[in-house]
Amino acid sequence: MSISLPELAGRLDAIEPFRVMAILARARALEAAGRSIIHLEIGEPDFPTPEPVVEAAVAALRRGETHYTPALGLPELRQSIARHYAERHGLDIAPGRIAVTTGASGGLLLAMAALFDPGDEVLLADPGYPCNRHFARLLGAEPKAVPTGPETGFQLTPGLVERHWGPRTRGVLLANPGNPTGTVVSLQALREIRARVRGRGGWLLVDEIYHELVYGRDEPSALALGEDVVVVNSFSKYFLMTGWRLGWLVLPQPLEPAIDKLAQNAFLAPPTPAQHAALAAFAPGVREILDARKAELRARRDYLVPALEALGFRIPAPPAGAFYVYADCSRFAEDSEAFAERLLLEAGVAVTPGTDFGSAGARSYVRIAYTVPEAELREAVRRLEGALA
Amino acid sequence: MSISLPELAGRLDAIEPFRVMAILARARALEAAGRSIIHLEIGEPDFPTPEPVVEAAVAALRRGETHYTPALGLPELRQSIARHYAERHGLDIAPGRIAVTTGASGGLLLAMAALFDPGDEVLLADPGYPCNRHFARLLGAEPKAVPTGPETGFQLTPGLVERHWGPRTRGVLLANPGNPTGTVVSLQALREIRARVRGRGGWLLVDEIYHELVYGRDEPSALALGEDVVVVNSFSKYFLMTGWRLGWLVLPQPLEPAIDKLAQNAFLAPPTPAQHAALAAFAPGVREILDARKAELRARRDYLVPALEALGFRIPAPPAGAFYVYADCSRFAEDSEAFAERLLLEAGVAVTPGTDFGSAGARSYVRIAYTVPEAELREAVRRLEGALA
Repeated sequence: MSISLPELAGRLDAIEPFRVMAILARARALEAAGRSIIHLEIGEPDFPTPEPVVEAAVAALRRGETHYTPALGLPELRQSIARHYAERHGLDIAPGRIAVTTGASGGLLLAMAALFDPGDEVLLADPGYPCNRHFARLLGAEPKAVPTGPETGFQLTPGLVERHWGPRTRGVLLANPGNPTGTVVSLQALREIRARVRGRGGWLLVDEIYHELVYGRDEPSALALGEDVVVVNSFSKYFLMTGWRLGWLVLPQPLEPAIDKLAQNAFLAPPTPAQHAALAAFAPGVREILDARKAELRARRDYLVPALEALGFRIPAPPAGAFYVYADCSRFAEDSEAFAERLLLEAGVAVTPGTDFGSAGARSYVRIAYTVPEAELREAVRRLEGALA
Repeated sequence: MSISLPELAGRLDAIEPFRVMAILARARALEAAGRSIIHLEIGEPDFPTPEPVVEAAVAALRRGETHYTPALGLPELRQSIARHYAERHGLDIAPGRIAVTTGASGGLLLAMAALFDPGDEVLLADPGYPCNRHFARLLGAEPKAVPTGPETGFQLTPGLVERHWGPRTRGVLLANPGNPTGTVVSLQALREIRARVRGRGGWLLVDEIYHELVYGRDEPSALALGEDVVVVNSFSKYFLMTGWRLGWLVLPQPLEPAIDKLAQNAFLAPPTPAQHAALAAFAPGVREILDARKAELRARRDYLVPALEALGFRIPAPPAGAFYVYADCSRFAEDSEAFAERLLLEAGVAVTPGTDFGSAGARSYVRIAYTVPEAELREAVRRLEGALA
């Protein structure tokens, strides 16, 4: 049956669906037909939420904590997040600067809505997480993708910010570590980027959702640079709470009323069960569980990067964190989309083509997520070896 | 300490904070100082989520269901919602037309983003739920508030839609029952509104979040009018799941891919714990609990409306549903904001001034929510009697 409908919004043309979703659907169909598929396309840790965190939610729900919270989150959760910065990073962040949000997605929407007007331009690295571009578009702002390559770790640099800043540019959004690359921008580079952004009257937003997943060192937060830097973070990745949809913003104190009224209107409040769960996420016993998971992710990376190189992939910007490898597949194929399809069909290994993350060199790269146990990773490498021989 | 910051977005000027939040904060401060306050300002049922719904979430969380779901929600939840329309309303809605969303807020954002471009005008009733206006603004669309009065139940009519439709008008958003009024638009009036909207190539969006809370009759859904009507609904009100942040859209089938890609980008997915809880919300035992709560709300309304009239309030458009009374206070005060403040301070009763919902007659009305037990309502009426004598 076909029905006649009015026109849809023009903005839909500018928003592409994730190609990875089509790959995932394809992989699921193959699985339903009996094929074994190893999922290296999914940007989500395979571990469940730690038990004490789940049990904190269970206890709260059974106590009847099922109503709205304040729009910026439970005051005790804002305090816990502030304390986390003090204890883990030696940073003094007032709880009033923390806004608990519906995922990092919710945080990014609120921050962009507060900082950028329609027509304002925001610089982002290409490749980068595609939602960030689309958030800007949703609000009528213009994401300006800056092509980056392995020589800068696929990240913005002070020079790139300088060169691409235009008359309508109002800010920079940077992910540290980055997705799809897991590469890190040093605090020194961030400091210089901030100086240039501030010098032009713009805003620096730093997406730190993988911040606690930098391996082998304590990576400083961009918050160390000053109160004017806006940080987006999440309980999804290090805290293993993806499905709960909970994140936070750290804001300059004067922005609290603006973000509060935006949050009241756009979300009412972040999910209550998730907030009660998250209160337990900072408990000492939980930190041990999370750090053990982090060690497991690191071991996977340490296995996977050389194994992929041995197969013939080039990894010119090896990941320092997150759970992704951005691998140059140009030795095997001219087009990463066709290559990803071939790996799925011939090897039963699902990966994400670079084209999900932008256009700079995107047809030469695939993102491989190490979000499966190491035994499965080894099996994936064996299968790739067979398919690429 | 003051810090220098870049400019904020201009859209913030057009978005007002809820006055009710200031009243709530004021009320909490009075309570902290030992005063007894009766809260008739809160748009949230006082009942906790039914136990079987909570326990469904508990079981799912303990099974490790803590990951992302598909962007439009768990397929079995989309099916349950479709079945609800079939069983309760005799409507045949394909599950593919249901999008599970992060609250009705998330649904409204997705629907408006898909249907309206920057500069497009959307007609809404004044008074009305303020977030609806602000969503439109967030996306660059123009909410056009149409002044309404008690003679139309504070709702849009076919004639008002006709009269206020302009060259840039692209749609109508209508809440049925309405907030702050609890008044209902008949299916016949909706049918005529739809015909006029369709005749001009526009979209009709109907917010039915209070749809199951129409007392004493089965109110038909606007979905009965045709597949082109877009409906926003929620688990918050009738299903008593406010804090979980879960709602849904019913869309024309051809919109599914557009809403899917918007949802992937803007939200990733609705909260997983809430979705597993909601699967139990349609179970027969739960329906009995919910209908008992609904009977309690109705009894409160049946007590409150004549009691307020006896005090001297005029209620020219009595509520057929939801849990609000929109009461004319002009006999007592010229300005509902000052009146609300006086009631809070002198009677310890918190209500919401009409100015939270628009400007048409707003200074003559207050919204009184019957979201406290009947004994407390009676105490509130006694206190008002004392203060207004």
